[in-house]
Amino acid sequence: MDTPSPLPVLIRKKRDGERLEDTEIRSFVRGVTEGTAQEGQIGAMLMAIRLRGMDAGETLALTRAMAGSGRTLAWPPAWHGLLVDKHSTGGVGDKVSLALAPALAACGCKVPMISGRGLGHTGGTLDKLEAIPGFRVSQSPEEMQQILARVGCCIVGQSAELVPADRVLYGLRDVTATVDSLPLITASILSKKAAERLRALVLDVKFGEAALCPGQESARELARSLVAVGTRLGIRTAAVLSRMEQPLGRAVGSALELLEALQCLGGGGPAELRHLVTVLGGVLLWQCGVAAGPEQGRERLARALDDGSALGTFEAMLGAQGVPPDTARGLCAGTPAQRRRLLGQAKVCEELPAPQEGWVQRVRALPLARVLHGLGAGRSRAGDPVNPLVGAELLVGTGQHLRAGQPWLRLHHEGTLSADGRRRLQAALCLGPEPPQDPPPPLVAETIVPSGAFPGPCRDSE
Amino acid sequence: MDTPSPLPVLIRKKRDGERLEDTEIRSFVRGVTEGTAQEGQIGAMLMAIRLRGMDAGETLALTRAMAGSGRTLAWPPAWHGLLVDKHSTGGVGDKVSLALAPALAACGCKVPMISGRGLGHTGGTLDKLEAIPGFRVSQSPEEMQQILARVGCCIVGQSAELVPADRVLYGLRDVTATVDSLPLITASILSKKAAERLRALVLDVKFGEAALCPGQESARELARSLVAVGTRLGIRTAAVLSRMEQPLGRAVGSALELLEALQCLGGGGPAELRHLVTVLGGVLLWQCGVAAGPEQGRERLARALDDGSALGTFEAMLGAQGVPPDTARGLCAGTPAQRRRLLGQAKVCEELPAPQEGWVQRVRALPLARVLHGLGAGRSRAGDPVNPLVGAELLVGTGQHLRAGQPWLRLHHEGTLSADGRRRLQAALCLGPEPPQDPPPPLVAETIVPSGAFPGPCRDSE
Repeated sequence: MDTPSPLPVLIRKKRDGERLEDTEIRSFVRGVTEGTAQEGQIGAMLMAIRLRGMDAGETLALTRAMAGSGRTLAWPPAWHGLLVDKHSTGGVGDKVSLALAPALAACGCKVPMISGRGLGHTGGTLDKLEAIPGFRVSQSPEEMQQILARVGCCIVGQSAELVPADRVLYGLRDVTATVDSLPLITASILSKKAAERLRALVLDVKFGEAALCPGQESARELARSLVAVGTRLGIRTAAVLSRMEQPLGRAVGSALELLEALQCLGGGGPAELRHLVTVLGGVLLWQCGVAAGPEQGRERLARALDDGSALGTFEAMLGAQGVPPDTARGLCAGTPAQRRRLLGQAKVCEELPAPQEGWVQRVRALPLARVLHGLGAGRSRAGDPVNPLVGAELLVGTGQHLRAGQPWLRLHHEGTLSADGRRRLQAALCLGPEPPQDPPPPLVAETIVPSGAFPGPCRDSE
Repeated sequence: MDTPSPLPVLIRKKRDGERLEDTEIRSFVRGVTEGTAQEGQIGAMLMAIRLRGMDAGETLALTRAMAGSGRTLAWPPAWHGLLVDKHSTGGVGDKVSLALAPALAACGCKVPMISGRGLGHTGGTLDKLEAIPGFRVSQSPEEMQQILARVGCCIVGQSAELVPADRVLYGLRDVTATVDSLPLITASILSKKAAERLRALVLDVKFGEAALCPGQESARELARSLVAVGTRLGIRTAAVLSRMEQPLGRAVGSALELLEALQCLGGGGPAELRHLVTVLGGVLLWQCGVAAGPEQGRERLARALDDGSALGTFEAMLGAQGVPPDTARGLCAGTPAQRRRLLGQAKVCEELPAPQEGWVQRVRALPLARVLHGLGAGRSRAGDPVNPLVGAELLVGTGQHLRAGQPWLRLHHEGTLSADGRRRLQAALCLGPEPPQDPPPPLVAETIVPSGAFPGPCRDSE
């Protein structure tokens, strides 16, 4: 039994840098969920947590209390060893989920992926899927289970019943300068995953200019916190640290990213996208015991991309989530031109010329994403619409030589690109007089698994 | 011209311990006043200020922005040198304002006292005055000026037009554990006084178990902040540090405190109450140049108490604030019994016996006030009613000998005193086997004036 503590007492305790007890954290989360906590009190508590921190035990208690603030999903016992999911801290051009969820399902996993729309520079996974006519993201837990039974995966929005405390806290963190708090990030991510009742989870923690974590050190700290708390929640949790300086792949913007994901699902697409998809999926297949190790898992996943089973699963998922069969078929089996026709085109498609001759050192993701955001590819406020057709295709890669005037970026927009936007886009292209001296650092910098790693293959409920 | 900064950016700056510019502070206060700031953002900013602090310049800017958030009072030029007020950080049995405002007016000052109800253990100054049938506290600025012209003083509530930003911040500080912040306390107190357009202000900063500041050191720090910021606002500001371990005087509770204030106004009452009233008033008379020094000011104020002019002014103030003339007359010129009859009596009046023989070391104000609060003498929530008839009279003083069973406290309540309440009251009485060795420390511990003190007598507008 929790004894309720008055909220000002709890805020004062955290303000003074003291540790909150599990019952106190539950009491705070209950106040948030039930609406008895004033918004001002929640804001003050978030700032106190941001400035005073929380230890691993407090973070675990916060995650548990948030996960338990609403409904949790339940699955048939036969699936327990196979339930997996992946979460990314967000990056420019990150369409990994679109390819990874069907590929994992094609390997026998069950992937009840609950995704967000995000307030990032460009749309989230749901926005990318909603570029497809007919795609619905509001499935109930019961519908999710039916789709998982038939298809093996689904990608849906967070229902109001799931982790309601996170909805309140997440919305407030954004406006109270309390986003970059290790315990708050950890609890927000893992409470949603805990409510999904997963066996295994892999986290793509990105670092770099265009990522939540600016440096590898802070990304490692976040990854360790996520792995430690996830493990204590009973989820087999691993994290991969990946670089986010340049866009992932060549496409940015909902419809263009979807097209690139379709290439990847068919065994093609940019090498680095395929690399990240197979690394993350390989870790998951190892974690849940489908593969003997991460390398074997990666090979198994690559096979699903190459043999058409991942693409077939994606087509089935589209059908199960409301896309007319002809559209799903055309997208998954059509030519690039047919695919584009199904998704539509922005008003203007123009190519930007290189301002001078040189060797591409890199293309900075952040300024590129910011301009696209201004053109309608992202949202500033929850609930705002996203234009799925706005986006950009990189026509060059690091190390490539460009003549002055040679196109380097194909931009899709609605005719609203300003002179300033054009200037900022050009500034995203970093040219040098010589090819880059060093080879580019590897996309995946590190993999973090709990000490003791994972107990071998296991399909029964632990 | 202020350039508006997005609130999350300002919160982040203070969160990271940076200094906020004047324009940024004005922008925050404007958001608070106009309602464009979310309550959660205000809570987060309050906590960031509480934990990161503000320097003197930021505190001044905050005070100015809050003072300017609503209407400010305006007075005839002839009064400018005479406008004075006093503010106390609050203590148990503190009825100083009731006697001081009329006494200062009797000395020729203009005292536009705007008071609060507070959430203290027992009622505030307004609650004490509202123990008088007919007393009204909602005068408009125009009515205040009429009363000041005729009577010289008034004690009114804060109108919604005055310092609206403080109303929002004050209400939130209470529930977000951000009350004890030096810059926030300073800005809250002085913004209201700045809106009164005073010449001189004296602050009674209390310290001790039953005070906002636990120790003399923190009280001195607050007093210095108040004096420095008040001076830079153009108000001649001084502060007195006074002890708050025992109740001030012998009466606690609205009606009983009013009766004791009437004794003081008539030249009688407890010596320490008269001492504090004359010390504070003496400093004010010196500050505004009516007296040559604080000691002369004290003598002048004592004369107003002794010659009946203070009591006469109080009677006139009651009449001007809605009390029927017979009631005002009866209260100010009647016998103690007549006075009590006019205010009414609580259902039960009982005397508590000393549990054993001994010498009174002290009577602790805090537990006494807490029990009275539970009996209805204070409020827990803004807007709750206060029972003016609940209260206690101390029948003993420090150093006095008590026989076992001899009454030491007369308690007025509505029949709801529990066994636990009775036990806690008895624990407020500290008895020893011998008289206290040392003489009690002086009530007034320190007086803090700005360096350079006050320029001599001055009645013109500076």
